[in-house]
Amino acid sequence: MKTMGLQHLYLVQPYSFPDAHATALSTGAANLLESATVCNSLTEALTGCAFAIGLSARKRNISHEIVNVRSAATEALTIAANQPIAFVFGTEMSGLSNAELDCCQMIAMIPANPDYSSLNLSAAVQVVCYELRMAALGDQANDTIKPNQTNELATNEAIEGFYAHLEETLLNIGYLNPVAPKKLMGRMRRLYARVRLEKEEVNLLRGILTLTKTPKKHDKY
Amino acid sequence: MKTMGLQHLYLVQPYSFPDAHATALSTGAANLLESATVCNSLTEALTGCAFAIGLSARKRNISHEIVNVRSAATEALTIAANQPIAFVFGTEMSGLSNAELDCCQMIAMIPANPDYSSLNLSAAVQVVCYELRMAALGDQANDTIKPNQTNELATNEAIEGFYAHLEETLLNIGYLNPVAPKKLMGRMRRLYARVRLEKEEVNLLRGILTLTKTPKKHDKY
Repeated sequence: MKTMGLQHLYLVQPYSFPDAHATALSTGAANLLESATVCNSLTEALTGCAFAIGLSARKRNISHEIVNVRSAATEALTIAANQPIAFVFGTEMSGLSNAELDCCQMIAMIPANPDYSSLNLSAAVQVVCYELRMAALGDQANDTIKPNQTNELATNEAIEGFYAHLEETLLNIGYLNPVAPKKLMGRMRRLYARVRLEKEEVNLLRGILTLTKTPKKHDKY
Repeated sequence: MKTMGLQHLYLVQPYSFPDAHATALSTGAANLLESATVCNSLTEALTGCAFAIGLSARKRNISHEIVNVRSAATEALTIAANQPIAFVFGTEMSGLSNAELDCCQMIAMIPANPDYSSLNLSAAVQVVCYELRMAALGDQANDTIKPNQTNELATNEAIEGFYAHLEETLLNIGYLNPVAPKKLMGRMRRLYARVRLEKEEVNLLRGILTLTKTPKKHDKY
């Protein structure tokens, strides 16, 4: 929960709480566990909630609509902008009962492998918290994190200078045949375009080209 | 891994393998653990791989581009249609070294809470496997699972019959003022439209309406 920026944990009739083993495992998130609210019933835990989403691993013979957790997270966040919402998880062994699911307004599932569909409780919670964070981040989550641009990118002139140098070298070593150049330089350009060359890298590459041994030019060139 | 339909596990210099405790924890996924390939180096593990994505929790001062795991999963699957790909995870304690990340063609991260960003290894693996499954399911994953339609939905006529019955009852009990009806029936329609009433439910509701006590009609109606 804490890794995904969530903090409000409600526990319904916990077997043991506080629990020394749980506290030990929580490491840097102990504060979240310590501030958990202990309730006697699911209804009590859901007091004040405008929208409760129950997690289910099974396709149940029920008349509820079941959505995947990605859609559920998006819908939940829309409501959460104004009113509290809850994701409800059952026990490790048996999940939520039908009576507990009836306390929820929506049932969500993680579309697992039908041959082995039962995630650990902790794994299911992590996936749901992750989807909530992704939904909360919105477009921000889809931004590629660019490398730290302490490294200056090469200018277009520098890159064109490199291409010219490369072409000259390829001609000199006899790899590029000016009579039948095919698409060699186009391919080289596509390759290096993907790299987004840095200024220093261009210098490095041109250094290599400069030192490339130049065989005696072929007479017909 | 197995819950998300994955099966090829490679272990690089495992501390203990096979390990009785790990086997016990794997329960129904023991077959996956038993068929794991043990390697002496990451390079050996990546033999034959066309694309390796390393997971990193930290923003490193490196010139690699870092993408989120959702984008990475989508890109990886495109390649995986033709050639093997790998997601590479480091140790629980310290993640992947820079040398190990340099063996990868892409670095992916889970956009965690910056104040507490270090997921457990198992949690990170679950999120990545989940994203791979979501990407593999594609549009299928976004399909809402409709309830088992053993329950016949009400026809339009049945629903209109119900609205007429409801309006009549609301008039009779004096809740709906025909002189100033406001938008009451429109609101009722919107409410029940969202429900997608079943045939039996319409019968049930009309039964309630039939038994709703009818006060003597107001003279002016």
